[in-house]
Amino acid sequence: MRTTSLSVFSDPRSVAVVGASADPAKWGHWVARGALRGADRRDVHLVNARGAVIEGTRSVPSLAALGEAPELVVLCAPADTVPDIVDEALDRGVRGFLGITAGIDAVHGPGAELRLAARIRAAGARLIGPNCLGVYDAAHELELAWGTFTPGNLAVVSQSGQLGLEIAGLAAHAGLGISRFVSLGNQVDVTAVDVLDDLLRHDATKAVIVYLESFADGRDLVAAMTRLRESGRPVVVLTVGASEASRLAARSHTGALTSATAVVTAACEAAGAVLVDTPVEAVDLAHLLLGSPFPQGRRVAVVSDSGGQGALASDTLSRHGLVVPRLRAETSGRLSDILPAAAGVGNPVDLAGGGEKDLDTYARVVDILLRSDEVDAVVLSGYFGCYGAETPTLADRELEVIETLGGTVRRHGRPVLVHSMSHDSVAVRAMREKAVPTLHTIDAVARSLGLAADLAVPPRGLGAGPDGPSADLALAAPADYLTGRDRLEAYGVRYPRARAIRTREDVDAAVGALTAPFVLKAGWIEHRTDVGGVVVGLEGTAEVRHAFEDMHGRLGDGGFVLEEMDRRPDVVELIVGARRDPSFGPIVMVGMGGVLAEVYRDVRLGLAPVSDSQARAMLSSLQAFVVLEGWRGRPARDVGAAARVVSAVSRVLAEQPDIAECEINPLRVGVDGAVAVDALVIQLPDCPVGEPADDASTLTGFLP
Amino acid sequence: MRTTSLSVFSDPRSVAVVGASADPAKWGHWVARGALRGADRRDVHLVNARGAVIEGTRSVPSLAALGEAPELVVLCAPADTVPDIVDEALDRGVRGFLGITAGIDAVHGPGAELRLAARIRAAGARLIGPNCLGVYDAAHELELAWGTFTPGNLAVVSQSGQLGLEIAGLAAHAGLGISRFVSLGNQVDVTAVDVLDDLLRHDATKAVIVYLESFADGRDLVAAMTRLRESGRPVVVLTVGASEASRLAARSHTGALTSATAVVTAACEAAGAVLVDTPVEAVDLAHLLLGSPFPQGRRVAVVSDSGGQGALASDTLSRHGLVVPRLRAETSGRLSDILPAAAGVGNPVDLAGGGEKDLDTYARVVDILLRSDEVDAVVLSGYFGCYGAETPTLADRELEVIETLGGTVRRHGRPVLVHSMSHDSVAVRAMREKAVPTLHTIDAVARSLGLAADLAVPPRGLGAGPDGPSADLALAAPADYLTGRDRLEAYGVRYPRARAIRTREDVDAAVGALTAPFVLKAGWIEHRTDVGGVVVGLEGTAEVRHAFEDMHGRLGDGGFVLEEMDRRPDVVELIVGARRDPSFGPIVMVGMGGVLAEVYRDVRLGLAPVSDSQARAMLSSLQAFVVLEGWRGRPARDVGAAARVVSAVSRVLAEQPDIAECEINPLRVGVDGAVAVDALVIQLPDCPVGEPADDASTLTGFLP
Repeated sequence: MRTTSLSVFSDPRSVAVVGASADPAKWGHWVARGALRGADRRDVHLVNARGAVIEGTRSVPSLAALGEAPELVVLCAPADTVPDIVDEALDRGVRGFLGITAGIDAVHGPGAELRLAARIRAAGARLIGPNCLGVYDAAHELELAWGTFTPGNLAVVSQSGQLGLEIAGLAAHAGLGISRFVSLGNQVDVTAVDVLDDLLRHDATKAVIVYLESFADGRDLVAAMTRLRESGRPVVVLTVGASEASRLAARSHTGALTSATAVVTAACEAAGAVLVDTPVEAVDLAHLLLGSPFPQGRRVAVVSDSGGQGALASDTLSRHGLVVPRLRAETSGRLSDILPAAAGVGNPVDLAGGGEKDLDTYARVVDILLRSDEVDAVVLSGYFGCYGAETPTLADRELEVIETLGGTVRRHGRPVLVHSMSHDSVAVRAMREKAVPTLHTIDAVARSLGLAADLAVPPRGLGAGPDGPSADLALAAPADYLTGRDRLEAYGVRYPRARAIRTREDVDAAVGALTAPFVLKAGWIEHRTDVGGVVVGLEGTAEVRHAFEDMHGRLGDGGFVLEEMDRRPDVVELIVGARRDPSFGPIVMVGMGGVLAEVYRDVRLGLAPVSDSQARAMLSSLQAFVVLEGWRGRPARDVGAAARVVSAVSRVLAEQPDIAECEINPLRVGVDGAVAVDALVIQLPDCPVGEPADDASTLTGFLP
Repeated sequence: MRTTSLSVFSDPRSVAVVGASADPAKWGHWVARGALRGADRRDVHLVNARGAVIEGTRSVPSLAALGEAPELVVLCAPADTVPDIVDEALDRGVRGFLGITAGIDAVHGPGAELRLAARIRAAGARLIGPNCLGVYDAAHELELAWGTFTPGNLAVVSQSGQLGLEIAGLAAHAGLGISRFVSLGNQVDVTAVDVLDDLLRHDATKAVIVYLESFADGRDLVAAMTRLRESGRPVVVLTVGASEASRLAARSHTGALTSATAVVTAACEAAGAVLVDTPVEAVDLAHLLLGSPFPQGRRVAVVSDSGGQGALASDTLSRHGLVVPRLRAETSGRLSDILPAAAGVGNPVDLAGGGEKDLDTYARVVDILLRSDEVDAVVLSGYFGCYGAETPTLADRELEVIETLGGTVRRHGRPVLVHSMSHDSVAVRAMREKAVPTLHTIDAVARSLGLAADLAVPPRGLGAGPDGPSADLALAAPADYLTGRDRLEAYGVRYPRARAIRTREDVDAAVGALTAPFVLKAGWIEHRTDVGGVVVGLEGTAEVRHAFEDMHGRLGDGGFVLEEMDRRPDVVELIVGARRDPSFGPIVMVGMGGVLAEVYRDVRLGLAPVSDSQARAMLSSLQAFVVLEGWRGRPARDVGAAARVVSAVSRVLAEQPDIAECEINPLRVGVDGAVAVDALVIQLPDCPVGEPADDASTLTGFLP
């Protein structure tokens, strides 16, 4: 038996709303009303136990009363009746169920929804929801949801129905229409991944906003978002879990764990998707994703008819990680040629009345700026978009200039964004149609442009599929120091030379094999620093003996380690770690070392494995990367070596199923290589050890 | 001769628009049209060289043609004619000039505008502008500006006319009206301070938004904003200069220097004003300032009819520095009593359908939360505000609930903010009227509430008026180390004991007078660390002698200093400095020490002098304050001692006119006091030295 395709939820041949209602405050009313709007395209049946007349259409008392079974059934009926309705519908050959009804488990006991889904799947049918808010598909005039939708090119997929509606409403308010809306509900059958993959075949969809509270199948989701991006449909992701309050709420609401924002950020980077914080950020960004070119970098020219607004635009763009560079003299000269004497021809450009004198000046200035190759985008900020609305004699001229602007954007393949003091004029709508994203605040323009600049980087994908651990992670325990070092050295991470010491008799041989100064470590103790299990700066046999006796006296027998000290000057300390995320699998982390870096939360995560160049990108996006580059006259450190260690650590977790977690703190990065001087490796006792892939030991260039 | 009061710009008995125009694209047309709207209240004359008919009113060819001189003249005429018009008007007794015309200096040469202002002042009259965009006063139906205004309670004062209009337009779009609008222009006579002080007598004004590009009279401005705040009119400040591009633009645009954002932040703190980044931030915040109580702290309860929106609201509030605390079991119990079983009764509160069942649930939940005393504000996020608009049968009920909500706010004196999915419904407008600020995005709600929480602190004022330097700061040069120490020790800053060494003969006596270990410093060299002018860890006479010989050999004769070393454990290093800002006078700065703190820009500024408790507030608002409090099990450091040093350094600059700048880097803060181990004091050579005020040497408790 063939499983039904998801097209039953976007273009069913016939639909029945079970639980349709005449009460305008009830879901069953809204869905029925929406379903009837598609009655030209398909058979629409309303099922209401009392046979009520709804919006002029008489309902039938039950599915049994229908001559032919509908292809899709919308479940709005009370929770206690739903299982029987489903069974009856399956018997009659229904192919799809849209589950609006909530609380089925509460009535029928835990697991009832999953059992329902199993019966539906067994019959080759599919279920969206239950506890969802419905679906909408513009191309097929299918409207089975609360709310009203405007047709357009933006798909909204949401784990929270009402938050999805908020996104759709904000989009409508901003003049953007919806191509498809899917409220996912409890996802007991159809999941976010299924719905995203289905959008690959949806011509009307040009961009996607997805809201998720949990990422049960994180890697599948990344793959699905990557496919959408590669099909030309950028994905904007919204999630929760940045605060303790929302983590607790999500857990009690859906029973699922949210993922840390930094992990979701890493997942979006892998997929070439953009993570935003709020619905309006997603919608503002969508203006730029629907037709406009993306910026290929962060350099922006600002043009305004007001010195104040130009300066404020520059500040706001800078706050969003964009750069407003000085223009070359040649470009400023070209601007001078067409602008009044009082104009500012640096960046920001101040038209100083040149726009009013001739509106075409706006288009000419933009063309000069884009032609200069000095900027990746132009932002117009101010009155443009208001001329025609406030002075009707200028209306036609303004539209002509907008036509020219649209041509300039197409010709140069670079975005022009407009912050217009008009919220919604004919000119504003014309600009949006010409792929000139136009927003009402400079905040929205700057934020959207900053986010879109992230999309200049193509999806990096996920690399080789990682192996998960084959035993319970709770059984994992720290390896002793030398074992930990060995596991990491197998991947090319370099450590100072070291020797094991178990008794005082081992001291002389160890000292003889190494070069002073030394550090003595109690290698079997995880938090050895806290218990006096580390002594640094030992210079010779006598000092080492004395330190060993003292430490052994205090800490007892164990695997001591004598290690050479890395005393290179101008070293910057990093922390590099990796762990297994419950949703996204192995994750690698890098950050600056030390207490302050922890306070300022300056760390970057990546889905493991990451390549050397991906690791380098992680490093360079640290706020404190300037320190590695050579801050205040200090020399540049060996960033390449640091990146190779980050990549190596990521592969350790991706390839070694017995390692639950590992951390190097600190990794000392000098001008000539990176040396690890600690190794915390948490491993499972009874788990196969993987083989490092062939390229694992290619790290070079450490201690001089 | 009495100088005219500024009321001539808000309620003139008569007005003449000189340069009125029939062309709707010209300023002279807009101003004429606006002026005529007040013709019921005052005589309005239009002056147009060709005697044109404008909006049905015949103009006169010149001021001379008017029988009686108008009280106020609006200057829209070409720049070349303005000086003659002014002279004629002054002769006829005109009391006020509103200078719209731009470019007077460009036509008549540099200084022409200042000379014009001098003539006007000499005649006892006043001038706003020139190069301004006009004024509007709702109470007196005076409309002499481009644009259209809605009457209300928000005053807008702007150095950039168009940016001021953007603010007014955003306010109108958000349902907020304007009480007075003043475009300041070039401020050659009437300044921002004058206009702000005039608002003290303006009953219609309940809050003020001011945009300034420069702060020539920074301390006067702080005093004026403080007076407004104390009169119950909170001030929102907008400025530019956060990016290099905007600093350059402002300089070329107005010739003025912008102030660093951190300095303006400090000025706003002193005035009890709020600094925002963009126009829409100012307008969103104004909703809260016009009638709603301010939050007295940062604890917020979130209520939503959607689990997703509640979680997202919690995250967004957290990003804006607010706290969404867990509720006590007792409060959760009270919520459980009135909510469905599926509801979330933690924080966020998830109504789970309880709102639809009975809309009054919204008001009852808010009342329970405010009555609990566990939160300083409540945020409703979601569908509330849409019920009546989408389901007309619920409209009356929704308005009743809003009435109840308004009463709850008044009774508890704490704010309730609503994020409503409706942009502008009857219910939304009703909430705004009931002092329940209602905004369309959770972003705007969270940001506004976070900013308003800053207003819980009353203005701290400026302390004693600081003395400025009496000589050119460019002549200032670094004092030698011991002199610098002395200047700071006079204010109670503690240093380790030290002795001067000029020759090798001084070494023994110095060593004898101090306790090892020592540090030897080349005290006359400013950047001594860079040239090997600091040697630490010296243990006895021999080591000191050797170090002295070596340093003397390399650096030559000079004022060497032998100093005891502060070797206390668990010390946190701070940097404390003070300098003279061209606009705001003496400024004190504190931040974490070290390279990373510099990268993360974690510093706080204050207008000097600051008291001990103000200094403590500066310290506690450092992001890395947690490190001083005892991070990761480390002990709490002596924050009080650190604060006393910050206060002392602030008083050094406020009271010592010869000191241009000083810096302690580092200040070592331990569990038992703060010890300075460096002193950079930049002083003027020929300038009187001030007396420390009496309380200067009260710092206690340093080295054990």
